[in-house]
Amino acid sequence: MKQLSVAIVGLGYWGPNWLRNFSSLEDCDLKYGCDLSKDRCAKFLRLYPGTVFTQRYEDLLKDKTLDAIVIATPTSSHFSLAKAALEAGKHVLIEKPMTSTSAEGKKLVALAKKKKLQLLVDHTFAYTSSVTRIAELVKNKQLGDLLYFDSTRINLGLIQKDTNVLWDLAIHDLAILSAIANLEDITEIMATGSAHYGRHVEDAHLHLKFSSGLAAHIHTSWLSPVKIRKTLIAGRKAMIVYDDTEPSEKIRIYDKGIDSDTMKSDPFFPKYRSGDVVIPALLSTEALAVEARHFLQCITGKEKSKVSGEDGLRLVRILEAADESLGKNHPITL
Amino acid sequence: MKQLSVAIVGLGYWGPNWLRNFSSLEDCDLKYGCDLSKDRCAKFLRLYPGTVFTQRYEDLLKDKTLDAIVIATPTSSHFSLAKAALEAGKHVLIEKPMTSTSAEGKKLVALAKKKKLQLLVDHTFAYTSSVTRIAELVKNKQLGDLLYFDSTRINLGLIQKDTNVLWDLAIHDLAILSAIANLEDITEIMATGSAHYGRHVEDAHLHLKFSSGLAAHIHTSWLSPVKIRKTLIAGRKAMIVYDDTEPSEKIRIYDKGIDSDTMKSDPFFPKYRSGDVVIPALLSTEALAVEARHFLQCITGKEKSKVSGEDGLRLVRILEAADESLGKNHPITL
Amino acid sequence: MKQLSVAIVGLGYWGPNWLRNFSSLEDCDLKYGCDLSKDRCAKFLRLYPGTVFTQRYEDLLKDKTLDAIVIATPTSSHFSLAKAALEAGKHVLIEKPMTSTSAEGKKLVALAKKKKLQLLVDHTFAYTSSVTRIAELVKNKQLGDLLYFDSTRINLGLIQKDTNVLWDLAIHDLAILSAIANLEDITEIMATGSAHYGRHVEDAHLHLKFSSGLAAHIHTSWLSPVKIRKTLIAGRKAMIVYDDTEPSEKIRIYDKGIDSDTMKSDPFFPKYRSGDVVIPALLSTEALAVEARHFLQCITGKEKSKVSGEDGLRLVRILEAADESLGKNHPITL
Amino acid sequence: MKQLSVAIVGLGYWGPNWLRNFSSLEDCDLKYGCDLSKDRCAKFLRLYPGTVFTQRYEDLLKDKTLDAIVIATPTSSHFSLAKAALEAGKHVLIEKPMTSTSAEGKKLVALAKKKKLQLLVDHTFAYTSSVTRIAELVKNKQLGDLLYFDSTRINLGLIQKDTNVLWDLAIHDLAILSAIANLEDITEIMATGSAHYGRHVEDAHLHLKFSSGLAAHIHTSWLSPVKIRKTLIAGRKAMIVYDDTEPSEKIRIYDKGIDSDTMKSDPFFPKYRSGDVVIPALLSTEALAVEARHFLQCITGKEKSKVSGEDGLRLVRILEAADESLGKNHPITL
Repeated sequence: MKQLSVAIVGLGYWGPNWLRNFSSLEDCDLKYGCDLSKDRCAKFLRLYPGTVFTQRYEDLLKDKTLDAIVIATPTSSHFSLAKAALEAGKHVLIEKPMTSTSAEGKKLVALAKKKKLQLLVDHTFAYTSSVTRIAELVKNKQLGDLLYFDSTRINLGLIQKDTNVLWDLAIHDLAILSAIANLEDITEIMATGSAHYGRHVEDAHLHLKFSSGLAAHIHTSWLSPVKIRKTLIAGRKAMIVYDDTEPSEKIRIYDKGIDSDTMKSDPFFPKYRSGDVVIPALLSTEALAVEARHFLQCITGKEKSKVSGEDGLRLVRILEAADESLGKNHPITL
Repeated sequence: MKQLSVAIVGLGYWGPNWLRNFSSLEDCDLKYGCDLSKDRCAKFLRLYPGTVFTQRYEDLLKDKTLDAIVIATPTSSHFSLAKAALEAGKHVLIEKPMTSTSAEGKKLVALAKKKKLQLLVDHTFAYTSSVTRIAELVKNKQLGDLLYFDSTRINLGLIQKDTNVLWDLAIHDLAILSAIANLEDITEIMATGSAHYGRHVEDAHLHLKFSSGLAAHIHTSWLSPVKIRKTLIAGRKAMIVYDDTEPSEKIRIYDKGIDSDTMKSDPFFPKYRSGDVVIPALLSTEALAVEARHFLQCITGKEKSKVSGEDGLRLVRILEAADESLGKNHPITL
Repeated sequence: MKQLSVAIVGLGYWGPNWLRNFSSLEDCDLKYGCDLSKDRCAKFLRLYPGTVFTQRYEDLLKDKTLDAIVIATPTSSHFSLAKAALEAGKHVLIEKPMTSTSAEGKKLVALAKKKKLQLLVDHTFAYTSSVTRIAELVKNKQLGDLLYFDSTRINLGLIQKDTNVLWDLAIHDLAILSAIANLEDITEIMATGSAHYGRHVEDAHLHLKFSSGLAAHIHTSWLSPVKIRKTLIAGRKAMIVYDDTEPSEKIRIYDKGIDSDTMKSDPFFPKYRSGDVVIPALLSTEALAVEARHFLQCITGKEKSKVSGEDGLRLVRILEAADESLGKNHPITL
Repeated sequence: MKQLSVAIVGLGYWGPNWLRNFSSLEDCDLKYGCDLSKDRCAKFLRLYPGTVFTQRYEDLLKDKTLDAIVIATPTSSHFSLAKAALEAGKHVLIEKPMTSTSAEGKKLVALAKKKKLQLLVDHTFAYTSSVTRIAELVKNKQLGDLLYFDSTRINLGLIQKDTNVLWDLAIHDLAILSAIANLEDITEIMATGSAHYGRHVEDAHLHLKFSSGLAAHIHTSWLSPVKIRKTLIAGRKAMIVYDDTEPSEKIRIYDKGIDSDTMKSDPFFPKYRSGDVVIPALLSTEALAVEARHFLQCITGKEKSKVSGEDGLRLVRILEAADESLGKNHPITL
């Protein structure tokens, strides 16, 4: 079987991880690395002598044998690079946020559809064994109907100059949420926050209401003395605490809650359940390795994309609505 | 010196703690216990044989020698009991929430002022060594200007039939906040929440904005699988994590933050401070013991009330605004 | 059915807990409290007006209708008080350590046997829901053959004048160990420790070897800056971490270990198991309530004593051997 | 100034870390990498194109311009490789354990002395910012006289075929202990342990007594369900808890203890101190980077070796005595 050939564009912070993961896939030819920096190209050529490193993106587009391009450049360049790649007939995997605006994202989705090409967005968390397990538990109805999703992602972080903390951090929680709930069901978005040092909001709360009754809250901050990565997910049948700072015991499943039946029959004395807690053993596979393989399987039609362009677009839309809510200081109804 | 005489009204959940603490004060005569239940009166008479236990509140009012009444009954009865006590010339210490409505609270404040009587509200947390220490650090400018106050008070709790989770739990965080910031400076109140089992909101977020730039967020829930009592308080000079579930190391002071001066001179590369963490040794005195003694000192004029009727009234007003925000689904400007 | 009548002797630190627990048992008449202090007797009479409080132990012995005596006095008095009680025909429940010497303990065991009376020793931990659950797991072979028991019980504690830290603290771990392993199988006892402030060892390690291969280690100290109460219990099939400082999640059951079969077939590449962790829900019943009820059931012959005089004696023997090992600085073979 | 030239021998588990750290030192020429595996040589040549990779150790010895050799091969080869290096006039940095036997170690120490060459042993922990800070606190008398050192290093670890758990894990704790106490003052060594799966002890306790009164205890195990890396170090004036599994807050300094003066004047009521806890900010420098630089500074005579051949030899002697104690089942007096 013919190997698929892949190029990685953008070799700064995240791109090298893609180089490493695609290079170790057997059914993949890591054909190009591409970056504007000559030094980076030289450096990675030493590590991957079988790959061509170039500063010219056109080289990739012109190569008829190249199957796919992974875009790991700054967000502002995503649209033009992805558009060119799709027009050249390449499948695309793109960092999140997918684009700077939903208008751009929409065009990419339409273009990929028209060209019958795969367009995936890199929601890394969706490929971790933690989130995969949580998504299974939700899908298998082991949590029951979801009541709330409450995520805290705070630390003393670098204050970004060109974006607020929601686009920087809440996007991860939205990617997780996207794996377990249908973001199309969101009816209302409300954000509140404050900027104490720079121009953009540094400490922010995002509230989402779903038509199903699910309520989501995401707290993100660059101004916390402690690093917290904790998500509580509660259903009527069980509840989960997902702590991503734990080295191995990341998920705890609580057999806790209120017995809905007794709530109906005897609303004044419902029964509370407080059973065992289970900390499931999780595979220690690297999310990017799973994701790289999945991208190839999507191209060959063996798997359906877990995180499509539509999924990526949805996050951009939510963040745009969050910005609107921040500006108008009231909830945005979708 | 004449001992002050005190009566405790309401011997259900909290009243017995007042019995125990006032009975152990040397300069205090625990003269009455009062409860509608005959059994409770009989039970506590055995424990406090020198105290008169009665089901008739009038007995307390008629006793000219009685100096003060502590009201620990359900909220709905606070107003009428406190009003009668003040009219009978008794000093009053009243459980929080002070009254069911701010209109009632306002009347009590006015009445106490007119009668020149002490009217205190039991913000128990204000008397803990943890909150006392935090308040000192704030007052002594050791935190610098406050940036945010972020509190989480969640657990699998009894769903109240007649009130929402903010009146049940957020009131504690407001009492803490009241000890370290001026609640008169609040400019905007926003609440959001959901009711999954009963009629009242069971999981809620309260956002407060202050004219000083301080932002407060309080998350309370009866539907959490884990019990969390954690408050982050950040200033420009230092930050605090206050975890009330810790048996002894409740407060951590972080020498962390962003150097504001470098932020001004070189906004693109501010310096981050990350110094030592200090866990101060705290006295293990019981908050109620401190508070009981303080109440007596206020009556004799030796101390100024830490938590006055005005303070208690302010909390009721905030909770009323929170209810209004919940109902209208937008922020309330004060 | 006739109620059993019980007396509590020694109303200092632990005795009041017995008063409270026996007084709340329906099928029990808490007939006497006994203490040398007149003040204590007066104080507890107010709390338990239906009980006779006396300073004269003889009154208890003479009362033909009294069924049982609980001895909660200092250790040095245990032997004479228990001996007199048994001779007077009373069933006895005695604090641990049962006696100051094994010679005394042996006499009590013989006397109880001769008089056909119940002689129980208060190994409180044996009645906690945590230890009860662990004992069940061991008994049901869910842990497989036991490999080791490793317990740490350290804190900044009051340095005792008349005893070393093993008699003060390790006795609790021995009581726990006694509930899950047969202490008759101990073949060797070794203790080591140091005294930095007083005359007796303040920081000590106790090592026990069992004929089954089980190895036990108990670390106790009065000189630790932190309070630790942690016990690891490993079997070939599963392992337990029991942390008694946890408010609710005291036991964690780890499906972890080495696959013995692969160890045999391929000793150079055994398989390691690393499965789920389960934190079982435990009842929150008070150990002393369970124990008080059990004592009565033993007297009426409905239950067999969980912790007999022989069990209590075994702990005294181990602690005597530990002292011998400390003195001789080498292991003691049993 | 002339750059020092360095060779790394053994490119398996640890050697690559030395390649990375020496290659990034400015005043160092990473001249050789050496390993018996041709594949490894080829792989690292790609990463370090300016370094010669060879399978022949003789090449290093013959090169008159080579200054120093770092030995990161299996322990059994340490002696012959180091001996040859010293005889060829090279300075040597050698992994721990320094040699398989103290006799070998002694010869290396003598040879280095005779040839006036640096012989360092890689006690990595001695160069961490955690241990460096603890050593400073001890040296500056901020802890006061040391009372005990108690270290736990347990996890579910690979059972070694050719050595016991003390040589594998306790050696790290001995390296830490070596940085804060004089191991020459050890008067007695006692070890106890058990082998449940293989031929060598898998779970062991090592007890050391010092002439100063300091008592050390090290617990190591390959059979623990949880990973613990915790060291308690207590002095008369302050105490430390060092938890190496913490990502950043590794050291806590407790102002806790017993007031020795009151202990003398009033032995029955000594005063207990329980002051603040301080978690010092630590540099996040990599220990190996510090150590690599230090090795070069020792060669040029600018620094005195922190961990000399004598220090490494001392650890081998202690482990030999521990083995002897395990075999004879009694303490070994030095």
